[in-house]
Amino acid sequence: MENVKVAIWGFGAMGSGMAKMLLNKKGVEIVGVCDRNKARVGKDMYEYLGVERGDRKPVIINPNIEEVLTEGCCDVILTATDSFTKAAFPRLKYCLEQKVNVISTAEEMAYPQAQNPQLAAELDRIAKENGVTILGTGINPGLIMDLLVICLTGCMTDVEHIEAKRVNSLSPFGHTVMEEQGVGLSVEEFNRRCEDGTMAGHVGFAESVQMIADAIGWKIDKFEQQMKPIVTTVDRKSPHGFAAAGDVAGVNMTGQGYVDGEVKIDMIHPQQIEPEMEGTFTGDYITIKGTPEVNMSIKPEVEGGLGTIAMCVNMIPHVINASSGLKTMIDLPVPRAIMGDMRELIER
Amino acid sequence: MENVKVAIWGFGAMGSGMAKMLLNKKGVEIVGVCDRNKARVGKDMYEYLGVERGDRKPVIINPNIEEVLTEGCCDVILTATDSFTKAAFPRLKYCLEQKVNVISTAEEMAYPQAQNPQLAAELDRIAKENGVTILGTGINPGLIMDLLVICLTGCMTDVEHIEAKRVNSLSPFGHTVMEEQGVGLSVEEFNRRCEDGTMAGHVGFAESVQMIADAIGWKIDKFEQQMKPIVTTVDRKSPHGFAAAGDVAGVNMTGQGYVDGEVKIDMIHPQQIEPEMEGTFTGDYITIKGTPEVNMSIKPEVEGGLGTIAMCVNMIPHVINASSGLKTMIDLPVPRAIMGDMRELIER
Repeated sequence: MENVKVAIWGFGAMGSGMAKMLLNKKGVEIVGVCDRNKARVGKDMYEYLGVERGDRKPVIINPNIEEVLTEGCCDVILTATDSFTKAAFPRLKYCLEQKVNVISTAEEMAYPQAQNPQLAAELDRIAKENGVTILGTGINPGLIMDLLVICLTGCMTDVEHIEAKRVNSLSPFGHTVMEEQGVGLSVEEFNRRCEDGTMAGHVGFAESVQMIADAIGWKIDKFEQQMKPIVTTVDRKSPHGFAAAGDVAGVNMTGQGYVDGEVKIDMIHPQQIEPEMEGTFTGDYITIKGTPEVNMSIKPEVEGGLGTIAMCVNMIPHVINASSGLKTMIDLPVPRAIMGDMRELIER
Repeated sequence: MENVKVAIWGFGAMGSGMAKMLLNKKGVEIVGVCDRNKARVGKDMYEYLGVERGDRKPVIINPNIEEVLTEGCCDVILTATDSFTKAAFPRLKYCLEQKVNVISTAEEMAYPQAQNPQLAAELDRIAKENGVTILGTGINPGLIMDLLVICLTGCMTDVEHIEAKRVNSLSPFGHTVMEEQGVGLSVEEFNRRCEDGTMAGHVGFAESVQMIADAIGWKIDKFEQQMKPIVTTVDRKSPHGFAAAGDVAGVNMTGQGYVDGEVKIDMIHPQQIEPEMEGTFTGDYITIKGTPEVNMSIKPEVEGGLGTIAMCVNMIPHVINASSGLKTMIDLPVPRAIMGDMRELIER
């Protein structure tokens, strides 16, 4: 049986992490990598990753997607290029038109129906026309604050209120994340960026809230979110970030989904570097009021970077097996680690 | 649009609990109930449950399945009659042959491939021949010690060892469960019943272990389980059980799945009445070693009775929507509470 063939578009921390994970799996091979970063272009993927190539063909990192991805050249492409559906759309469309299944790390693509219903419908149409499947996933959105919540409601006869809280550390992340989450800014600068809309913060609350609501059958009539600085009282230093006492160590995001005028879904997501320095310990918490009540915690938090890498790779067989169109995590079987041969998981 | 039509076979704690839950849901109706218990036969379900019938037709509890379930008379039947696949088989076969989808609470039916692969294949064949779907589910097996474990491995690049631990209280349960779990026996009597094979204990470890292994791609080469008495040092009394000091308050079940001669899956499940009397607090714990590690806890435990009722009812739309054949929880989309109209969840 032929190996499952995978291409990767975007070879930053996520894309290259997926490559490393895939190279440790059986029955799967990487057939192409697209990335425009000058530090990567022209290099052999194996050399770039520091992995023995053995007798495998070189995979040269190529900036031109047209040269990497041609019709039916692989079973699935993993795209780690964007956070937003609108920005990702032309790239996703190109991939689908090559009759290749697509998995996207774009946070909004975890549930594009939430904020971009027209683009979601368009992606669904293009995927169906080309007989392939597209899925957005990751650790969050994708699992911790949405799919896992939904799964836990499965043992409940009635749900009254949902709180999903993810307390995480930004310390393992690089410069881009520090910049996006405002690490090291003064409070004034942080607030200015919030006002002019250039603070990214966590992207995904709208998607997680809508995914949960659609899954269990609540009609969301209002969604709100807030972004507040986490101000440190001590100097905090992480490998790629620094926040002096009095400045911003991260961002506290909160969001609410209203049903019939009442808050039914509460999202709480403080993210910061070195949270332990001020007595904050990381963890994922799901509290569902209803019958029976469910109080879940995962301590420490599931690591975001590795978690996203794993979710994207682990969903490959489900995406290949799915009927064509736009899928979300609530349409497919539960995610799972792949410890055996990936080929055995494909229904051909 | 017509209501989703449901029949129920077995109207004990589980079956009648499912009926109560269904009567609180929109877009679904109960069209028949089969039960042979003399205390129930001939009674109107609504009266028996103490629920206002309103303008709904009476549903008389009938001991003859042939009179309750005729070809295509409903969309799905919930069967709560057995724990073991072999015992349940003729009943499940009858239901499938009436071209009705089936959900079974039988613990072994959560993954009949584990201990009854031939019967599993036969059920798959019969279901496909009749164009319907059959699923076994419940809180455990079905969610806590298997599907939830599998779902959490979805965020892992590599899995080394899995421990699933469910510490629960038997206090809410009735006489049958007390009997099955040895509550109130002397230690000698308990051991005698273990030896002659009449102690039921928890049914489901073999199924949970095999479901996890198949889902993530481990080949189980040996499975073992042990059953030990939980001896109380104080008198313990629950609504339907009593254990004097020195006697058995419950059963501690442990089980192991071996991969390549090494224990890779550990199951730990102590069940007893009034555990708090000796400082044991209930909870569900999943510890997965690997990358990244996942340490989950749900405290207190998800209540077993309500959980099983909810899982069976909540899976109805997934089972109706599924392709025909024998399905398990790892084949279908994640379970979820149904807070909206059940008809909207059916893909017709």
